[in-house]
Amino acid sequence: AGWEPVSVREYEKAAEMMLPKNAFDYYASGANDMITLRENRAAFSRLRIRPRIMRDVSSTSNKTTVLGIPVNSPICIAPSAMQRMAHDDGEKATSAAAGKSNTLMTLSSWSTTPLEEVAAAYPGGPRWFQLYVYKDRKLTAELVKRAEASGYTALAVTVDTPVLGRREADVRNRFKLPVHLTMGNFIGAGGAHAEGTKDGGKDSGLSAYVASLIDRTLSWDDIRWLRSITKLAIVVKGVMTAEDAREALRYGVDAIWVSNHGARQLDTVSSTIEALPEVVAAVAGKVEVYLDGGVTRGTDVFKALAMGARAVFIGRPVLWGLAHSGEDGVAAVLRLMNEELTMALQLAGCTSVDEIQKSMVVHQTAYYTPSKL
Amino acid sequence: AGWEPVSVREYEKAAEMMLPKNAFDYYASGANDMITLRENRAAFSRLRIRPRIMRDVSSTSNKTTVLGIPVNSPICIAPSAMQRMAHDDGEKATSAAAGKSNTLMTLSSWSTTPLEEVAAAYPGGPRWFQLYVYKDRKLTAELVKRAEASGYTALAVTVDTPVLGRREADVRNRFKLPVHLTMGNFIGAGGAHAEGTKDGGKDSGLSAYVASLIDRTLSWDDIRWLRSITKLAIVVKGVMTAEDAREALRYGVDAIWVSNHGARQLDTVSSTIEALPEVVAAVAGKVEVYLDGGVTRGTDVFKALAMGARAVFIGRPVLWGLAHSGEDGVAAVLRLMNEELTMALQLAGCTSVDEIQKSMVVHQTAYYTPSKL
Amino acid sequence: AGWEPVSVREYEKAAEMMLPKNAFDYYASGANDMITLRENRAAFSRLRIRPRIMRDVSSTSNKTTVLGIPVNSPICIAPSAMQRMAHDDGEKATSAAAGKSNTLMTLSSWSTTPLEEVAAAYPGGPRWFQLYVYKDRKLTAELVKRAEASGYTALAVTVDTPVLGRREADVRNRFKLPVHLTMGNFIGAGGAHAEGTKDGGKDSGLSAYVASLIDRTLSWDDIRWLRSITKLAIVVKGVMTAEDAREALRYGVDAIWVSNHGARQLDTVSSTIEALPEVVAAVAGKVEVYLDGGVTRGTDVFKALAMGARAVFIGRPVLWGLAHSGEDGVAAVLRLMNEELTMALQLAGCTSVDEIQKSMVVHQTAYYTPSKL
Amino acid sequence: AGWEPVSVREYEKAAEMMLPKNAFDYYASGANDMITLRENRAAFSRLRIRPRIMRDVSSTSNKTTVLGIPVNSPICIAPSAMQRMAHDDGEKATSAAAGKSNTLMTLSSWSTTPLEEVAAAYPGGPRWFQLYVYKDRKLTAELVKRAEASGYTALAVTVDTPVLGRREADVRNRFKLPVHLTMGNFIGAGGAHAEGTKDGGKDSGLSAYVASLIDRTLSWDDIRWLRSITKLAIVVKGVMTAEDAREALRYGVDAIWVSNHGARQLDTVSSTIEALPEVVAAVAGKVEVYLDGGVTRGTDVFKALAMGARAVFIGRPVLWGLAHSGEDGVAAVLRLMNEELTMALQLAGCTSVDEIQKSMVVHQTAYYTPSKL
Ligand SMILES: Cc1cc2nc3c(=O)[nH]c(=O)nc-3n(C[C@H](O)[C@H](O)[C@H](O)COP(=O)(O)O)c2cc1C
Ligand SMILES: Cc1cc2nc3c(=O)[nH]c(=O)nc-3n(C[C@H](O)[C@H](O)[C@H](O)COP(=O)(O)O)c2cc1C
Ligand SMILES: Cc1cc2nc3c(=O)[nH]c(=O)nc-3n(C[C@H](O)[C@H](O)[C@H](O)COP(=O)(O)O)c2cc1C
Ligand SMILES: Cc1cc2nc3c(=O)[nH]c(=O)nc-3n(C[C@H](O)[C@H](O)[C@H](O)COP(=O)(O)O)c2cc1C
Repeated sequence: AGWEPVSVREYEKAAEMMLPKNAFDYYASGANDMITLRENRAAFSRLRIRPRIMRDVSSTSNKTTVLGIPVNSPICIAPSAMQRMAHDDGEKATSAAAGKSNTLMTLSSWSTTPLEEVAAAYPGGPRWFQLYVYKDRKLTAELVKRAEASGYTALAVTVDTPVLGRREADVRNRFKLPVHLTMGNFIGAGGAHAEGTKDGGKDSGLSAYVASLIDRTLSWDDIRWLRSITKLAIVVKGVMTAEDAREALRYGVDAIWVSNHGARQLDTVSSTIEALPEVVAAVAGKVEVYLDGGVTRGTDVFKALAMGARAVFIGRPVLWGLAHSGEDGVAAVLRLMNEELTMALQLAGCTSVDEIQKSMVVHQTAYYTPSKL
Repeated sequence: AGWEPVSVREYEKAAEMMLPKNAFDYYASGANDMITLRENRAAFSRLRIRPRIMRDVSSTSNKTTVLGIPVNSPICIAPSAMQRMAHDDGEKATSAAAGKSNTLMTLSSWSTTPLEEVAAAYPGGPRWFQLYVYKDRKLTAELVKRAEASGYTALAVTVDTPVLGRREADVRNRFKLPVHLTMGNFIGAGGAHAEGTKDGGKDSGLSAYVASLIDRTLSWDDIRWLRSITKLAIVVKGVMTAEDAREALRYGVDAIWVSNHGARQLDTVSSTIEALPEVVAAVAGKVEVYLDGGVTRGTDVFKALAMGARAVFIGRPVLWGLAHSGEDGVAAVLRLMNEELTMALQLAGCTSVDEIQKSMVVHQTAYYTPSKL
Repeated sequence: AGWEPVSVREYEKAAEMMLPKNAFDYYASGANDMITLRENRAAFSRLRIRPRIMRDVSSTSNKTTVLGIPVNSPICIAPSAMQRMAHDDGEKATSAAAGKSNTLMTLSSWSTTPLEEVAAAYPGGPRWFQLYVYKDRKLTAELVKRAEASGYTALAVTVDTPVLGRREADVRNRFKLPVHLTMGNFIGAGGAHAEGTKDGGKDSGLSAYVASLIDRTLSWDDIRWLRSITKLAIVVKGVMTAEDAREALRYGVDAIWVSNHGARQLDTVSSTIEALPEVVAAVAGKVEVYLDGGVTRGTDVFKALAMGARAVFIGRPVLWGLAHSGEDGVAAVLRLMNEELTMALQLAGCTSVDEIQKSMVVHQTAYYTPSKL
Repeated sequence: AGWEPVSVREYEKAAEMMLPKNAFDYYASGANDMITLRENRAAFSRLRIRPRIMRDVSSTSNKTTVLGIPVNSPICIAPSAMQRMAHDDGEKATSAAAGKSNTLMTLSSWSTTPLEEVAAAYPGGPRWFQLYVYKDRKLTAELVKRAEASGYTALAVTVDTPVLGRREADVRNRFKLPVHLTMGNFIGAGGAHAEGTKDGGKDSGLSAYVASLIDRTLSWDDIRWLRSITKLAIVVKGVMTAEDAREALRYGVDAIWVSNHGARQLDTVSSTIEALPEVVAAVAGKVEVYLDGGVTRGTDVFKALAMGARAVFIGRPVLWGLAHSGEDGVAAVLRLMNEELTMALQLAGCTSVDEIQKSMVVHQTAYYTPSKL
């Protein structure tokens, strides 16, 4: 059977061996010095689980609900663009793998497959649509309508991308969506909408695309506009501070998604797990809070939940699974991470995610005792 | 005479060169990213001894008692499974080396030699039995009776293993107990009990064994059950929090053993030496507290004792000695670590382990002065 | 077109490949163990930006004023000696690139081009003159007069160089200004003034030059003397403590420049970004505060401004651009860093440098939560 | 002229290339894992100098007094054994280099040259004698008398060596004093006193020597005994805690020398510069406090003085100079470190060591601001 990855990290290694450099780099890299990229992982490593013992864990479950939707697990799929670069089956494979395991999937606006086809790959699966607000508001509204029509139940509005972060590998590679692929949600839309790429000169083609088409004026009032055109739940993706969490509540969002866009936007912002507590405190239980960024281990999920997240989303791990073996690979990654979460529950003395308690996770420095008198 | 190890670390190197990869990996590895494995060592390195001078240290002793048993040293032997993979003489060699130096040895349930033979290798030596509670309670009770009959004076009930932690090297190696060996305490028991291994598919065979045979419902009430079937002292092995230490006291255990199972169960739990203070504080002197995990230096022992442990247990160091040269190797490792402890006593101004004081150990950050102003 | 640098770090790599070792070493190195050199960068990496979202950033500007002079950007050019070692066009190229982008340039006393020629390379550009006070006060006064006459609008008086810091690479290289170059501001001055170098024996030739010609008696009273001979604004370059900031205010300086001379003087002083807060607090808004040292990223600029700097100055990045491709290279580096700053503004939710708020930057340790209990 | 070292670190490299492995290892190594050895250096690197500016530093001096003796510099020479392994001229070369620069030298009991010859190499130089107290008290008393007679003005009584620390390289090398050398102060003394070595079996020969001949009963009362047999000042070398500093005061010592024996005794004790503040606080100015351990830079000296040391002692740097080029090498190292100290004074705005202020040195963490809120 050859070498089989035993961890997400090994799926990444496999993907690196299998993908063309420009595709792998686009998936893997973060902004500038990638300090935040490393921190997204390192910050999890600095947290310690305090395991409880002697509890009957003969039967455990990862099940939970997200915005009321019953799901198999608090591990959900974050939107990531251009999945057909990873595998021919692209977003359809992800959709099928997600659906079959009752995993919540968020589809990117920049899918290389039309959202209708993605939904059709596993009708009825729990599914959200990630929205980029385009300068062309009519086009944006149409997109929302189509998502609604295809059974997506919430909009994850990405609020951290007025411009595309500078991922230097993409600049070096003059990254462009390969010519045989298109931005599937924009087929027929005018201009470069469907190309997913502009001539960026010496820059990334995707940066140029964003610069020319995405709406940089996006502000809180636009939440009202979205409310006015759709009944879908509205989740704000990209909140990193208590101040903005409070703003979001003021504008009546349905949920808050703590994210630094996989460390791809502004380098040296904090890791998401470190930003989570201030957001959770500000939200004070009024809406659900999610987190993405650097989640690759069952223990990461455990920690995020202990610190107040309702669910986590994974971006790159899905891409590595997809690159490795399409739908099977995505399924394998989901299974692996869920098994790790189950084991974390069992070994910490919990039988369900609801039993995870705040006191079960502390920062490593909490242990830096004894001090001198 | 060739190269002779001068430290436990070098015994490990020797073992790595001498053992088959799957055996060495099984012994050496920890769960997942092995963050806790590194922390078990690193946390000791972050502690500083405050040495006292000008004390007559012409005569010093490592002697102490553990649950009233007089022992040569607070360095005791932790239970580790399957010692015959390290050396043909396996647990018998460990038993003989321990007995001859009046060192407390804990024998694993998963010994590759029957507990009676192990005891016979050095009758009368200080000896405990580590108990895994099997789903088959009758079998479990028989095991306890046999331990009692063979002179084991306490049960170290392992409470951190409702499922086996995921040690990725074992998964990669599809680790199984080699066919020429058996789980010596279960010869004649039905099913896979004696094989020590199940077909784990792509997983470790030992994980599958645990999943199918070990009792995941284990809870505090089972301490009462154990009390009802034996007169042996009951030590709870695997406590990592103040909360569980208090629970253990409530259920009347005889001693508490702080352990993260050599970092083999749940990755990113704290190191044991960092968990020790909260347990010691919670126990407040009511029962003895022990520690294992990462102890490889005499100064580690000194630190654990300063922070409230009555004794420490060593797991891997014994295996490295055993792999190196059987009984002689175990004896050499015990001697080396005891000499290091003696030197730590002498150079810190103590003549016995009782003279070790709390104020003699502080965290390195206690020295991070002066601050501005 | 070949390889094109995508970051200041890559411009440095290019420069390293293109320059003779003794020139590159002179530019790159810091004092002794270069602990402060690393810290100048590392300290920025330890700061986290707290990005604000949902703000209309369709139009942003880096514009600001420095001592009332309108400039394109808070990124200004620090004085660095001997620029003709980097490129034949030397200081003239820097002047032209700066002038064309309305960037404030500070010319070093130790320019390898006369200050009049440098000014003439882009008449009317925002321009300051960095002053080393020579033992020969008459010569010093003449230099000030010439700067005044050529349109330099402020003196940056360097106060951290009574002796030249020990940069060990320069000692090893027996560094000397190459024979085909001269200290352009001292042509015709007696002694070694124009040579820029003395026979240092086994030491750096520049160290010997400083030891023999620069005035080590410089003290606060000399600020009064400077006031008496010029109408130029006086900026004190090299303040690292609150105490000295208060002294500077007492002596009526026009602005304070926090600098450790690019970590080239006293090793193990703090990074400049870490020294900034105490200076800003001491100055309490009475005069402008600037910072240089390790600024290579747009996010660094953002952080310095959030923490109270009015502007930052860059030393080495300009030299790397100059070495890479003369005026074009300097222009490219300025453009790159300004684009990075613009992106930092956009992604942190600011439309101008005035909108950067103190709360937008925190030390990473501020995130080290949660603590136990 | 070939390669000439520009720093103490480079003298060490030169020594490593020139010396036989067993000699270099004996000089270079520390106890066990050498954690404290690294910390002795690292702790200095964690301290930041706060430099003051605009002070007339045209004339500076390193001069000070130690126990009333006027010396060229607060940089003194620590006792190190067996210097003839580094260079044929051994202790005589050190004595001459020290004397010529009016540097205080401490001669080891374990000199490979008789103390009288060492004194004669530069009569009248400032000179102390380091005393190991032997089991043979008569021999010890004679040694003290000889030191007195030869002009040594104080005894540095080493109190941290009841047994020799375990330096694993020496164990591996079965280190022994080379046969052509002798312990020069014990020529004619019986037993192994002059051999400096015993058959250590698998251990270091020097360890066995210490174990058999040095007095492990040494305690505070012996300070009284020493007082009774000599008029020499008594300095206690090896104090690491406030508690012992108070004890030392109680027994009327003349000075306290903070030392961890170059990290050669008990591994994981704190660095000396981190132990210094508690000792200085406990001593409260009643006697002089010195420090050794890891001092290799002028800035280290500056820091130790800012934190309350009257003087520092250097061990290995002298050995590296000696190995490099005998007396010249020792002189070169002393000159280099003094020049570095002078530069530190100048660049921190001090004209003498007395002007160094406590506020001029802080721990790096003092700069870890701003915190959130
Ligand atoms: C290759 C890639 C493409 C992405 N595309 C999008 C996208 O189109 N829309 C979006 O909101 N986020 C996008 N993200 C961000 C993810 O939704 C998510 O925030 C991030 O990947 C989580 O971090 P992780 O990759 O460490 O799990 C993308 C991330 C990656 C790695
Ligand atoms: C190879 C190996 C096998 C082990 N087997 C057992 C076991 O059968 N039962 C048990 O309670 N603990 C077992 N342990 C855990 C040890 O008892 C002990 O907690 C741990 O090894 C201490 O850490 P150390 O190896 O760093 O000294 C095992 C540990 C190792 C390394
Ligand atoms: C090669 C070089 C030459 C310098 N020459 C001078 C100078 O002549 N006068 C001066 O005040 N500062 C001089 N500096 C210091 C710079 O003005 C500035 O403080 C420092 O370079 C800022 O750090 P950075 O290089 O990390 O940006 C020089 C720095 C370098 C790197
Ligand atoms: C090779 C060597 C030999 C030493 N011999 C002695 C000695 O004979 N007596 C003593 O009190 N200290 C001895 N020391 C310790 C030194 O006096 C001093 O405490 C230590 O070297 C200071 O640290 P440093 O080497 O980092 O400067 C020795 C140290 C070294 C490195």
